Amino acid sequence: MSRLDVFINRMLSQRACLNHAVELTKGQPGPVFELGLGNGRTFHHMREIMPEREIFVFERAIASNPNSTPAEDMVFLGDVYETLPAALKRFGPTVRLIHADLGGHDLAKNDVFAKALSPYVEPLLDHGGIMVSSDRMYFLRLKEIPLPQDAVPARCHIYQRG
Amino acid sequence: MSRLDVFINRMLSQRACLNHAVELTKGQPGPVFELGLGNGRTFHHMREIMPEREIFVFERAIASNPNSTPAEDMVFLGDVYETLPAALKRFGPTVRLIHADLGGHDLAKNDVFAKALSPYVEPLLDHGGIMVSSDRMYFLRLKEIPLPQDAVPARCHIYQRG
Repeated sequence: MSRLDVFINRMLSQRACLNHAVELTKGQPGPVFELGLGNGRTFHHMREIMPEREIFVFERAIASNPNSTPAEDMVFLGDVYETLPAALKRFGPTVRLIHADLGGHDLAKNDVFAKALSPYVEPLLDHGGIMVSSDRMYFLRLKEIPLPQDAVPARCHIYQRG
Repeated sequence: MSRLDVFINRMLSQRACLNHAVELTKGQPGPVFELGLGNGRTFHHMREIMPEREIFVFERAIASNPNSTPAEDMVFLGDVYETLPAALKRFGPTVRLIHADLGGHDLAKNDVFAKALSPYVEPLLDHGGIMVSSDRMYFLRLKEIPLPQDAVPARCHIYQRG
């Protein structure tokens, strides 16, 4: 299996899991968070499948394609260890869906980041709220739930607050 | 259709066309050229599906994942308008397969680049030699041939020297 194969599986799974999460959260209130914007392709997709939702983006520095750049007032600019607590203060535990693709080259480094990030993500979600992540997260109270059929196991994870 | 959808289709088509090109050129002599290395995912895939081939990479500056970095003597470093003529001098019209994904954000800019690049690519291919490109190319003598079934039309192009 080549790195291209792995990458394609990750992208396919990311899309499948996000589409699935939209089904699972349909009609329920709350904002959506995108952790890391990057090129903005996934943000573009999220806007398309959730046109009615407010989607807030957390990023150190915006470097996305102009077609996929969030409005200024929808961005939490800076270090997530500061912006996620700020978002918790602002919104409380009301977030409906959080997506993250930490995905760097270094798998061990991603895992360390996922571990560090998990306690910052966990308190944000509302009851029934969902996190879609390309990396395994380390939550205390969120439960990992089954992937949709068109996702590739281990290329994506879905967690839900009970 | 979101930018994520378009991107997934491009990656799926790139892989399908490369796999197809390997079938079409099986047992025929000649090196393979990868124009643009980027992250190296596609190069990694090409090495996997053509372990017996010499694959030369053309790139301005190597910035690939360490798992997908070519040996130094397999790289033509610099401007393609200089390195492709140098390769033509070295190999003559013997190349079996050329792959290019010029794919930047700016479609108009890609098209200008594809037009400028085409006359540099065309003389390199051997009879029956194939070019797989994510962008439409502007060849005088190469013929566009049908895509494999698992590629998405217009997301990839295959050209062959008669």
